[in-house]
Amino acid sequence: MKAYIITIGDEILLGQTLNTNAAYIGNSLSELNIPVQKISVVGDNESAILDEFNLAWNSTDLVFVTGGLGPTHDDVTRKCVVNFFETELVENEKVLDDIKSLFEKRNRSLTEINIDQARVPRVAEVIRNQFGTAPGLWVERDKKAFIVMPGVPYEMKGMMESTVHKKLQEFKGEEKVFVERKILITTGIPESILYERLGDLDELLQGAMLAFLPNQFGVKLRLTVEETDKESAKNKLSETEQKLRTKIGRYIYGTHDQSLEEVIGKLLSERELKIAVAESCTGGLIGSMLTNISGSSNYFERGVICYSNASKVEILKVNEDVIAEHGAVSQEVAMQMAEGVKSTSGADIGLATTGIMGPTGATSEKPVGLVFIGYCDDKVCTARKFTYGNDRILNKERTAQAALDFVRRQLLGISTND
Amino acid sequence: MKAYIITIGDEILLGQTLNTNAAYIGNSLSELNIPVQKISVVGDNESAILDEFNLAWNSTDLVFVTGGLGPTHDDVTRKCVVNFFETELVENEKVLDDIKSLFEKRNRSLTEINIDQARVPRVAEVIRNQFGTAPGLWVERDKKAFIVMPGVPYEMKGMMESTVHKKLQEFKGEEKVFVERKILITTGIPESILYERLGDLDELLQGAMLAFLPNQFGVKLRLTVEETDKESAKNKLSETEQKLRTKIGRYIYGTHDQSLEEVIGKLLSERELKIAVAESCTGGLIGSMLTNISGSSNYFERGVICYSNASKVEILKVNEDVIAEHGAVSQEVAMQMAEGVKSTSGADIGLATTGIMGPTGATSEKPVGLVFIGYCDDKVCTARKFTYGNDRILNKERTAQAALDFVRRQLLGISTND
Repeated sequence: MKAYIITIGDEILLGQTLNTNAAYIGNSLSELNIPVQKISVVGDNESAILDEFNLAWNSTDLVFVTGGLGPTHDDVTRKCVVNFFETELVENEKVLDDIKSLFEKRNRSLTEINIDQARVPRVAEVIRNQFGTAPGLWVERDKKAFIVMPGVPYEMKGMMESTVHKKLQEFKGEEKVFVERKILITTGIPESILYERLGDLDELLQGAMLAFLPNQFGVKLRLTVEETDKESAKNKLSETEQKLRTKIGRYIYGTHDQSLEEVIGKLLSERELKIAVAESCTGGLIGSMLTNISGSSNYFERGVICYSNASKVEILKVNEDVIAEHGAVSQEVAMQMAEGVKSTSGADIGLATTGIMGPTGATSEKPVGLVFIGYCDDKVCTARKFTYGNDRILNKERTAQAALDFVRRQLLGISTND
Repeated sequence: MKAYIITIGDEILLGQTLNTNAAYIGNSLSELNIPVQKISVVGDNESAILDEFNLAWNSTDLVFVTGGLGPTHDDVTRKCVVNFFETELVENEKVLDDIKSLFEKRNRSLTEINIDQARVPRVAEVIRNQFGTAPGLWVERDKKAFIVMPGVPYEMKGMMESTVHKKLQEFKGEEKVFVERKILITTGIPESILYERLGDLDELLQGAMLAFLPNQFGVKLRLTVEETDKESAKNKLSETEQKLRTKIGRYIYGTHDQSLEEVIGKLLSERELKIAVAESCTGGLIGSMLTNISGSSNYFERGVICYSNASKVEILKVNEDVIAEHGAVSQEVAMQMAEGVKSTSGADIGLATTGIMGPTGATSEKPVGLVFIGYCDDKVCTARKFTYGNDRILNKERTAQAALDFVRRQLLGISTND
């Protein structure tokens, strides 16, 4: 079984939008062990879309289409599906109810064009949309499947997670080769050093496959094993994972899609600890990451974003003389900020960041990318220096990630020196 | 003249790498007014690549290929070019010199596989590579051009900028149609209602083209006009833009790639105003967005992330009785938070958020998605209610965007009621 992904939209041909939808679907299919033969992008143009439908349907078993399902004039995908499968539109009660309740919830009145979105091709099974008005479509014919989803990324992802992934597993039927995969997520170590620490890969892996997937937050390691029965695959995977953990375990904070803030949330909840954050250079990003997790109000006491020196002194009780002597971006100030936010909030842990994110703000002694992270609990009060690059957004993201990893390591008793 | 972009690489099919190369080329071609008919991605597989070469060469005048030119076993693009044009490899002196000097510069000794990279298809003109060893290829035949470049993004970009862009202008000849484009970015209005407000599109556009590009923050409108001379195209674009602005101007916060935080940063800077933010449900996201902009320390005074009621009372001086009577998620508390952060910080503007982001935390009277945004300056102190969906992260993003738009509208004297 092979898949073909078609993305529809002029904005992608024009290079105005990156094709993240195809990447997301490609990645989901690789988890299901379904190879993608081709990805293509065509414009909002009926004849180009129909040509592409033909090409895809004739060469593969699974066709994914995203985009062009919106309510406006330039959305022609639904019409193309009707033509391609020689069918007609019929109103779908369930979809109409979904659309109505979405509008009710948002306190908006329904428009004609939204009601029209409840009309779907007769041959299609509807994929419900939790986040928008356009329904997805699933058409099966000749043991092949044709799946159409909206181009809005979170609507498409919602459908993949709630419905499509499960239906694909059924559609695919029983496995002949059993593939087991595990993703181990590391942070705080560059790809090349991670690679070096693992040593001889052939000896380590013994036939298992390992892929390195780096991003700004760290390196994900994708471990894949293929065996002829499920039991052996599971055993082999777990053995290999243990070998990896022996070598680089301290850098692995989680598995699969776990975020560091999720892992820390669990640790804090289990230990009934509360954290408070004082952010200068990260500007609220750490607070935002921690509060992305539902239930974070149980352990996130408060945050303070102290961009000005005045606010550091006033709210966090940082000593003015210390700022004057060492500068706001210094180990001393990072520690005092962490201590200040802990004591003023009454939380168990205080975490603080101060740094120069760039592109401006550097001095002869303090370059862009210089960061100090402070940490304080009932036993220890410490700070560590980090050096990053010139990109402001990347620097913020890396600092926030390093600060959260600092907390993880302190809570687990792992050294924070390396 | 139409173009076809082929990207080669398993990592893109697997969704591990975003196809930024195709976006870059698409964007360059749109500047040259050359429409892209299709983008495709195929794996590192000779027969798939050759099939795609045929498809592209038979349907368009300009074929761009990136990827698979490296020195290792899985790079097969050059071999496919040789087969496709029925030619042979010949050593190119200039390329060999380039490779030698690159290695000298890096203090590395030349390997066999690098020397082999100096062998290029006889029919091809070489595109020199300033940043790597693989040369680019330009083949012209039957008034068509076939352009091959490496997959490493900065090597490809280097070739586009130094050589390909210029050669394309020559190849294309004189302009017959002049295209002008503008993107207007709206927020605070759903796609379908925006569409409705614009009324009869044919009458409004008079032949100009309008595309709707929605995401979680709002809807981008891409306006395109084509005329036979540059002057008319510019005039037509500006006329149509004005007509759009008359109908929906209040929702348009910027153009092209501008973010709302950038627009607000400019407004605050120009007026020499300082803002302070009190975030409950957005948890630091507004602070993080504002501080993504370099120079934000000039207008962002401080932020307070008050998750707990205690911190609202203690830091923001919110009245305890008001929380008891109306609840923390209420119009009254949002206003008091905005007022509190303004007065305690001494900033000119106080902005506040409080809401239920979900999935938990709802009560019988207050559902998930209920949000109040408070705003306070020297003249006005107000708050507005919003209702969003069930997704925590989306709710945070939408609330932050709405809060920033609240500030924009207040600063510009636009009503905040709709």
